[in-house]
Amino acid sequence: MISSKANSKIKNVVALQKHSKTRKEQKAFVVEGLKMFEELPREKIKEVYATEAFASKYESLLAGMVVEIVDEKIFELMSDTKTPQGVLCVAKQMDYELTELLEKPETFLLILEDLQDPGNVGTIFRTAEGAGVDGIILSENCVDIYNPKTTRATMGSIYRIPFLYTDDMGAVLKELEKKKITTYAAHLQAKTAYDQEDYQKGSAFLIGNEGKGLSKELTKVAKKLIKIPMAGEVESLNAAVAATVLMYEGNRQRRRET
Amino acid sequence: MISSKANSKIKNVVALQKHSKTRKEQKAFVVEGLKMFEELPREKIKEVYATEAFASKYESLLAGMVVEIVDEKIFELMSDTKTPQGVLCVAKQMDYELTELLEKPETFLLILEDLQDPGNVGTIFRTAEGAGVDGIILSENCVDIYNPKTTRATMGSIYRIPFLYTDDMGAVLKELEKKKITTYAAHLQAKTAYDQEDYQKGSAFLIGNEGKGLSKELTKVAKKLIKIPMAGEVESLNAAVAATVLMYEGNRQRRRET
Repeated sequence: MISSKANSKIKNVVALQKHSKTRKEQKAFVVEGLKMFEELPREKIKEVYATEAFASKYESLLAGMVVEIVDEKIFELMSDTKTPQGVLCVAKQMDYELTELLEKPETFLLILEDLQDPGNVGTIFRTAEGAGVDGIILSENCVDIYNPKTTRATMGSIYRIPFLYTDDMGAVLKELEKKKITTYAAHLQAKTAYDQEDYQKGSAFLIGNEGKGLSKELTKVAKKLIKIPMAGEVESLNAAVAATVLMYEGNRQRRRET
Repeated sequence: MISSKANSKIKNVVALQKHSKTRKEQKAFVVEGLKMFEELPREKIKEVYATEAFASKYESLLAGMVVEIVDEKIFELMSDTKTPQGVLCVAKQMDYELTELLEKPETFLLILEDLQDPGNVGTIFRTAEGAGVDGIILSENCVDIYNPKTTRATMGSIYRIPFLYTDDMGAVLKELEKKKITTYAAHLQAKTAYDQEDYQKGSAFLIGNEGKGLSKELTKVAKKLIKIPMAGEVESLNAAVAATVLMYEGNRQRRRET
C-alpha cells in the first residue's frame, strides 16, 4: 500500500491533475470515479489506483488489473473531487486525426474557438454526443479537455466523440471547404435565423469565446452567418447554450431525413 | 467613508451575500458590478456602496443617490467576486403573483423542480428571457435565485423575467390546468420526440433536478411526456441544456406563427 505523499507515483498523479503542461508532456490524463473508470476503454489504462475499501467492494471490476492500493488520506490528496470515490486512473490521451473527423460523407462538426470555461466545454462535449455530432475541433487556446473538471463534465463523452486541438484553424477550415462542409457562425448581425438553413449536408458550427464571441477572422471565413433570435434584452447566450440550440437544430433536421 | 469591517451595514451585506435565510427575512439581495447595477430598476435600490475610485469615475451614474463610500479593503470583504468592480447595492427582491405569470392568453412557462446548481439556474433564466419565456416557477427546494452566483449568471434577466417560488406545486399545476396551459415533462421513456408537439398554445416545460431528474409525482401530473432524442451513449443532458432544447423549440414554433 502507498501511504506516503512523497511517493513519486503519487506526486506524478497530482502533477497530472494540476498541470496541462505535464499532461501534454506525458500524453496522459487522470480519470476519476466509478462511472468514468468503467467507461474508459481498457486499452487507454496506464495506471490504476484504489483505496482498500474500493478494491474489496469492486474486486471483479478490477480483476486482472495491476492496481496500486493507496491509503485513504493519500487518495484524498490525489483526488480533484471533494468526495473521492476511491478509484482513479492514469490514462492515455485520445489521439484522432482530422481525416477521421471528415470521414463521413455528411459529417456534422463543431468548432470551438478559445473557450475558457472548463464546465462549458465539458457540457458541450456531452451535448454534442447526444446531438449526434461527429467530431469537435478546438483552437489551441481552448481550455484543456483533460482538465479534471472538464473531463468529468463530459460524463464520458470524451471517450466517444472524436476531437482534436489545432494551432492552425485556417488550414483546418481549408480542409473542410475541400470536403464541401459548410461552416456556420452564429452572429448578432446575421440576417438569417439559424433554423432557416439546411444542416443535412456536411455542416460545422463555429462557437466563439464566452466573453468576446467569435473572432473577426473566423467570422470572416465562415461560409454563412446565422442568427439565434433573442427576445427581451438578452444580448448573448452562454456559449454552451448557443452550441446546444444549433446542435439540436442540426439533430432535428437530420432526424427528419431518416 | 466606511473603513471598519465591524460596521453594522457591512456586516449585514456580508450576511446577505452568504445566507439565503437573511435574504428571505429582509426580502433583499445583493447586486454587484457595473452592468448589473445599471440594469437594476431604480425603485428596487435600498442601499448603494461604492469605492472612492468607482464613485469618482461614475459620478453621473450615481448622481442623486445616497452612496456609502467604502474603503477598498472593506469592499473586497463585502464582495462575492474575485475582482470587485467597486459598486454594490442592496436591492429589494422581486415580488410576482402567479396571476401575473398566467396573464398572457398563450403564456409560455418553465417549471423548475429542485434545481441545485446556482450556475445552471442563472443560465436558465438568461436563456428563458432569450427564448421569450413569460415566466418561471421554481419549487421551494430550488437553489435561491438571489444567491450571488445565480444572480450574476442571469446577466440581468432576473430583473426582467417574472418568476416565483412555490411550496405547493400541486396547487400551481391545478391553476395551470384551469387556464388550459399544457404541461410537458421531458422523460426518457416518452414515445413522442419534443419537436412533434405544438407549443404555440399555452405551454409549460417541467425541468427536474440535475441528478435525479423530474420526480415521479410531477412526471405523473404532467399532461404530456416528451423525449429529447440522444445519440451515442448519452443517458441524459445537463438540466440547462435540456431546458434550452425545449425552450428554443417553443421559440422556433412561436416565431413561425407571426
